[in-house]
Amino acid sequence: MPGEAKVVLPGDVAAKPVARARGASMAVVLGPDIGVPNFITRRFFLAPGGRIPEHRHPDLEHEQVVIRGEMTISLDGHERVVGPGAAIFIPAGCPHWYENRGQEPVEFLCVVPNTGSYATEWLEDPPAGAYTP
Amino acid sequence: MPGEAKVVLPGDVAAKPVARARGASMAVVLGPDIGVPNFITRRFFLAPGGRIPEHRHPDLEHEQVVIRGEMTISLDGHERVVGPGAAIFIPAGCPHWYENRGQEPVEFLCVVPNTGSYATEWLEDPPAGAYTP
Repeated sequence: MPGEAKVVLPGDVAAKPVARARGASMAVVLGPDIGVPNFITRRFFLAPGGRIPEHRHPDLEHEQVVIRGEMTISLDGHERVVGPGAAIFIPAGCPHWYENRGQEPVEFLCVVPNTGSYATEWLEDPPAGAYTP
Repeated sequence: MPGEAKVVLPGDVAAKPVARARGASMAVVLGPDIGVPNFITRRFFLAPGGRIPEHRHPDLEHEQVVIRGEMTISLDGHERVVGPGAAIFIPAGCPHWYENRGQEPVEFLCVVPNTGSYATEWLEDPPAGAYTP
């Protein structure tokens, strides 16, 4: 049975710290809990100085859109700075990392397929100050 | 073969008017043209006074996030006003419409599965002033 229509407001879902990252948190805003079938929309926050170290997902891609702030990303070894409105496609297997080198908080959306698994291969140790539960 | 990583900036893709709607345009920001496999990210603009009339998609769902502005939406006959940060899940088969009753432009993202087809059942005639090519 398909899910019901749902509106999720910014305060409805708490963001949780991202393991192995520094200054990063993530909230699942549209996911299996509310009946979404095929892809999951998550909201990421990256504080000034924050970093999600390099990793890749062998089996799943990302579609991302920056909402606010500017961050430096690396895609397959190529660094660039992205700001509000930038849309990013990261194919399965592509090494990537994120870092907020600015003074303003960064927020971006990240959509992933709802595969039931979420394999991650870390290519870098957690940065100093990372959340490592 | 998986696609390459890609960054698409707001000015990179032109928005095209949405047929049967008034004051609405849409740009595919991450789609099959750049090799995305499973789901497509689109950016919608709805000018003050704009309306996308009621319709439903029997076979595909939407995941949406409002970027700026406030709009009135109807989901399965229930109206509500949504603003920046609101995330919306519209399951397959759910009747929905959008209207900008405010003074500011509205922008929202809409992610859909990449099924190769995009069946739409219109439940309402185009509003006055609609784009009907």
